Amino acid sequence: MNTVVQNIPRADPAIINGLARAGVATVHEAQGRTGLLASYMRPIYRGASIAGSAITILAPPADNWMLHVAIEQIQAGDILVLVTTEPSDAGYFGDLLATSALARGCRGLIIDAGVRDVRDLETMGFPVWSKAIFAQGTVKEILGSVNVPIICAGAAVDASDVIVADDDGVCVVKCSDAADVLAAAEKRTANEGDKRARFAKGELGLDMYDMRGRLKSEGLKYV
Amino acid sequence: MNTVVQNIPRADPAIINGLARAGVATVHEAQGRTGLLASYMRPIYRGASIAGSAITILAPPADNWMLHVAIEQIQAGDILVLVTTEPSDAGYFGDLLATSALARGCRGLIIDAGVRDVRDLETMGFPVWSKAIFAQGTVKEILGSVNVPIICAGAAVDASDVIVADDDGVCVVKCSDAADVLAAAEKRTANEGDKRARFAKGELGLDMYDMRGRLKSEGLKYV
Amino acid sequence: MNTVVQNIPRADPAIINGLARAGVATVHEAQGRTGLLASYMRPIYRGASIAGSAITILAPPADNWMLHVAIEQIQAGDILVLVTTEPSDAGYFGDLLATSALARGCRGLIIDAGVRDVRDLETMGFPVWSKAIFAQGTVKEILGSVNVPIICAGAAVDASDVIVADDDGVCVVKCSDAADVLAAAEKRTANEGDKRARFAKGELGLDMYDMRGRLKSEGLKYV
Amino acid sequence: MNTVVQNIPRADPAIINGLARAGVATVHEAQGRTGLLASYMRPIYRGASIAGSAITILAPPADNWMLHVAIEQIQAGDILVLVTTEPSDAGYFGDLLATSALARGCRGLIIDAGVRDVRDLETMGFPVWSKAIFAQGTVKEILGSVNVPIICAGAAVDASDVIVADDDGVCVVKCSDAADVLAAAEKRTANEGDKRARFAKGELGLDMYDMRGRLKSEGLKYV
Amino acid sequence: MNTVVQNIPRADPAIINGLARAGVATVHEAQGRTGLLASYMRPIYRGASIAGSAITILAPPADNWMLHVAIEQIQAGDILVLVTTEPSDAGYFGDLLATSALARGCRGLIIDAGVRDVRDLETMGFPVWSKAIFAQGTVKEILGSVNVPIICAGAAVDASDVIVADDDGVCVVKCSDAADVLAAAEKRTANEGDKRARFAKGELGLDMYDMRGRLKSEGLKYV
Amino acid sequence: MNTVVQNIPRADPAIINGLARAGVATVHEAQGRTGLLASYMRPIYRGASIAGSAITILAPPADNWMLHVAIEQIQAGDILVLVTTEPSDAGYFGDLLATSALARGCRGLIIDAGVRDVRDLETMGFPVWSKAIFAQGTVKEILGSVNVPIICAGAAVDASDVIVADDDGVCVVKCSDAADVLAAAEKRTANEGDKRARFAKGELGLDMYDMRGRLKSEGLKYV
Repeated sequence: MNTVVQNIPRADPAIINGLARAGVATVHEAQGRTGLLASYMRPIYRGASIAGSAITILAPPADNWMLHVAIEQIQAGDILVLVTTEPSDAGYFGDLLATSALARGCRGLIIDAGVRDVRDLETMGFPVWSKAIFAQGTVKEILGSVNVPIICAGAAVDASDVIVADDDGVCVVKCSDAADVLAAAEKRTANEGDKRARFAKGELGLDMYDMRGRLKSEGLKYV
Repeated sequence: MNTVVQNIPRADPAIINGLARAGVATVHEAQGRTGLLASYMRPIYRGASIAGSAITILAPPADNWMLHVAIEQIQAGDILVLVTTEPSDAGYFGDLLATSALARGCRGLIIDAGVRDVRDLETMGFPVWSKAIFAQGTVKEILGSVNVPIICAGAAVDASDVIVADDDGVCVVKCSDAADVLAAAEKRTANEGDKRARFAKGELGLDMYDMRGRLKSEGLKYV
Repeated sequence: MNTVVQNIPRADPAIINGLARAGVATVHEAQGRTGLLASYMRPIYRGASIAGSAITILAPPADNWMLHVAIEQIQAGDILVLVTTEPSDAGYFGDLLATSALARGCRGLIIDAGVRDVRDLETMGFPVWSKAIFAQGTVKEILGSVNVPIICAGAAVDASDVIVADDDGVCVVKCSDAADVLAAAEKRTANEGDKRARFAKGELGLDMYDMRGRLKSEGLKYV
Repeated sequence: MNTVVQNIPRADPAIINGLARAGVATVHEAQGRTGLLASYMRPIYRGASIAGSAITILAPPADNWMLHVAIEQIQAGDILVLVTTEPSDAGYFGDLLATSALARGCRGLIIDAGVRDVRDLETMGFPVWSKAIFAQGTVKEILGSVNVPIICAGAAVDASDVIVADDDGVCVVKCSDAADVLAAAEKRTANEGDKRARFAKGELGLDMYDMRGRLKSEGLKYV
Repeated sequence: MNTVVQNIPRADPAIINGLARAGVATVHEAQGRTGLLASYMRPIYRGASIAGSAITILAPPADNWMLHVAIEQIQAGDILVLVTTEPSDAGYFGDLLATSALARGCRGLIIDAGVRDVRDLETMGFPVWSKAIFAQGTVKEILGSVNVPIICAGAAVDASDVIVADDDGVCVVKCSDAADVLAAAEKRTANEGDKRARFAKGELGLDMYDMRGRLKSEGLKYV
Repeated sequence: MNTVVQNIPRADPAIINGLARAGVATVHEAQGRTGLLASYMRPIYRGASIAGSAITILAPPADNWMLHVAIEQIQAGDILVLVTTEPSDAGYFGDLLATSALARGCRGLIIDAGVRDVRDLETMGFPVWSKAIFAQGTVKEILGSVNVPIICAGAAVDASDVIVADDDGVCVVKCSDAADVLAAAEKRTANEGDKRARFAKGELGLDMYDMRGRLKSEGLKYV
């Protein structure tokens, strides 16, 4: 029952990096407003903006044994995504594991649980999106699984899905959709440049999007 | 039923700016400890300190159509205050709307819902106090109202009320009370300078406020 | 019933400072994973890392009278630890009290309630770990106690216990255990240096901790 | 500043009783989906269904002095509505105060705080909708106000507004709107009887409300 | 993008009814401790114990249009499972929709949102497990989908999965696993009868499960 | 470090039963408004009212091994009180353990975690006050301790303390204070009978407690 899936596929690095540049809000829109993790997943420090292939981890409460197992599966550019079999705020991850993960080329951690040593992690430039910052120690007693399908903060994540994370939160893109989503995201970004310029000059959304007629027909009254 | 009230009155800009200087804690005290929004309303970045006239917005859940309507009503120095008809964490506002609002002279947004593109907003210097940071997209399908009375995070807000917001949270001052509250706030601030100096020299509050007798008569025992 | 205990013992300053250097996560581990306050206790600004002897305060809801009483009991290096008799988010503490506490040599405040003037507190370098940032004012009407045993955010704290607080949260060390905990913490820290170096070179925890055999015998399957 | 408003107007008892019969969900719909208190306000026991004129109470945290003041203002058919100046879960109200309120003809209590002696209250048939059940005692030290405008669980309540409460929650109707809202509610209830009969026979909402065309034109695909 | 999947497969009714008899806790254990919805999903009344095939619904916030669409897809013995595209507490479902669903043979509703008319629902014997009881009305403006894969309160649910719900909460069983899970559940139940009898006679778990040796070897000290 | 303390003292059964009769609210008041557990601790069914000597349990997250150890320590009239080393909602306790505990004379369980099989527990008449109802299974892998000092839902509990629990929540009385607290509680109860009769006749608290003068001198204005 407890398994480690090795040799997962990964999306094209150029596509992954493109999704990082697009950012969470744009990627979420580009794939039809799906894939967001719940808003309680917050970065431990501001300013990081990453994308990478998901190494998924299913771990027992307050037991971080599977993180060691997962780190062996990391390839450069991957992101660890950990959920627990039962809700937990324990501090599964700190500066030692971050050192190990960084040495393998890991870009960050998404964890629906707690993290600690957060100042060290910021100094090292290892970004984490978590449910809690909590120093509570963990054990290494009970097995979990690595690279099995999980549900993280309300979103389904499969190993090899592309994770995009920035100050707005975390979004997951199916590996097979990554190229299409990037194309849609880039189109959206290009389109926004023009709108931004028009807004900056003072043009109103009411006019830009031609909303006045519909507002009137829906019955909005100006008094 | 869905209305936009145009031409709202506004408090004197000098008074508004004075309230910004006084800050949330002092203004809240100066008006008899009233007017605070609930403590879950937090700034998306630290260091902003603003005051302005409220443009109120009542919006359906996950529908930001009325923000476009409200932006047309902005005059330089105003602050948008959005509540939803049903609790929502969706990301109603991002960098495009901020560009538009800034172009109209808007000073910030108070939103009892979610916001996104927060790094861009910080870069632009557009401060937001919100319930959530969340990239979840919104639609433009259902009408709401602008500049009607609302209740935001537990506080009643009318269009044209003065909103004061800083790292301590958000406080609302009735437009008609603004001058009196500023006077009381400035008196309080002046008074605090003397106290601060005495505290800094090591004088105790027990002595400064002559508390020892009352503590004794109330029965406090030193052991 | 309402009492102020004066003349509490304090741990050796060198030990206290050593615990500050070790930090919350290490100290928590070094004393057998005990003593953490709940994870909702967060610093009002990042980067502070302190330790000191606890001056405990039991205060009524939204009444900060006892803070004035407690400040008289401060000796240089102490930390105020306030809990309320009933849950409260009110802003018990702001820049004036911080000025007074700093003048007595206080190193910071741990408060299972609210705090305000947080920008001033950061400017002054007075760190606070709190449940809320909230400007709500308090009264000075009802007695509490100082230096009695309290339970703060789920942890028992006696006056003179050593409080350690940093970006990971807050941990309490019994005064009588402080020397032993420091010794264990320093051993742990020394031990971590070697591990960190090995991790940085790419060695896996699976090998460093010799986990492969146990994973296999517990039944982990690689597929 | 602390005031008791005496001699408030009240809606017609026949209208009030009609609103009780209509119930919270219907009344809320009948007045344009407004007036609901937040969903955390829950009945301490199931099955009560009441309406009455609001006696409003603004009380300090963990201080129930104003309840005694408010009880003197009760007329038969009134409902007490208490909010606190700062969030509190304390048990402001128990069997003694319920005995006193019942003797004055009070129909129930809406309290954005805690209540205790809940088994006695159920035995007495005194319904309460509250944020918490908590035995924490309160003091009688600090003034508040009675029959001033308040905001209770996110809804504005003025003294003399009609409160409607049942297992679905609590709704407030402006005193001046009560007759119109009742008329709309009764029309809605009458209308629902016919719909209920058709639904019971197996007719689908898709047909009853003629939705199929609009679903198709909006793009819903059946596969 | 918005689709209704018709003609979903369903598990054998005898197996479904067997899972209802086994109950949530036993079924959850029988399938390896998986499939539970989060603990905030609570029954609106106690004592119901059901199982049925899932009709899944993905609905916009505060918009219950898709419920009408879903009801047409119900076959006798089905259970509606509704999630929202953005968190919502609105009252999507009440006595009229319950009348309609009951007429189609629906056994109950699992809804990660709000429900209203709860006293009527209890009287009708229509059980609901929900996140909230809230009278807030909904609109019928925006499309969603029916019988697509959803994530409900942290658990993945596909149309035709077997839902088991009782006072302990809600558990989902993959349609293809239903027979095996029932077999395991019945074995577990049979096994528990013997244990229960031995516990009732006073035998200790320490002896029944032969735990004393392992406790000793792990280092438990009796003092 | 993991220990089981055997042979704990217990308060006089007559005193314990007297405290059960007095109930949580009265006992809490009688001991100076101390000893309450947080209000999130709720009974799984209404109507139980118990008191007994605490058998304390410190358990790892989602691991109920120590419950088996604790049950051996039960004497007739005891109450189990379980806390976890890290927050957990798992279902540590169900009908089998309840059967075992009942066979030893246990009166109930106070658990700052989850419980399951709640309908069976109600049928058996085994009351539980818990943080959650959740079927999530637990393991028996990691040691904890029995009859060591714990902090349960914010209150310190030592083995042999008297636990009082009813529909209002849970209160803890130090074993050495039990006789004095009972005396104070009985005095309070006797005193309340007279007050209740006077309130029932319509006498106001304002007169019974002679509050009018103090209200006036504090500045309350009647308008």
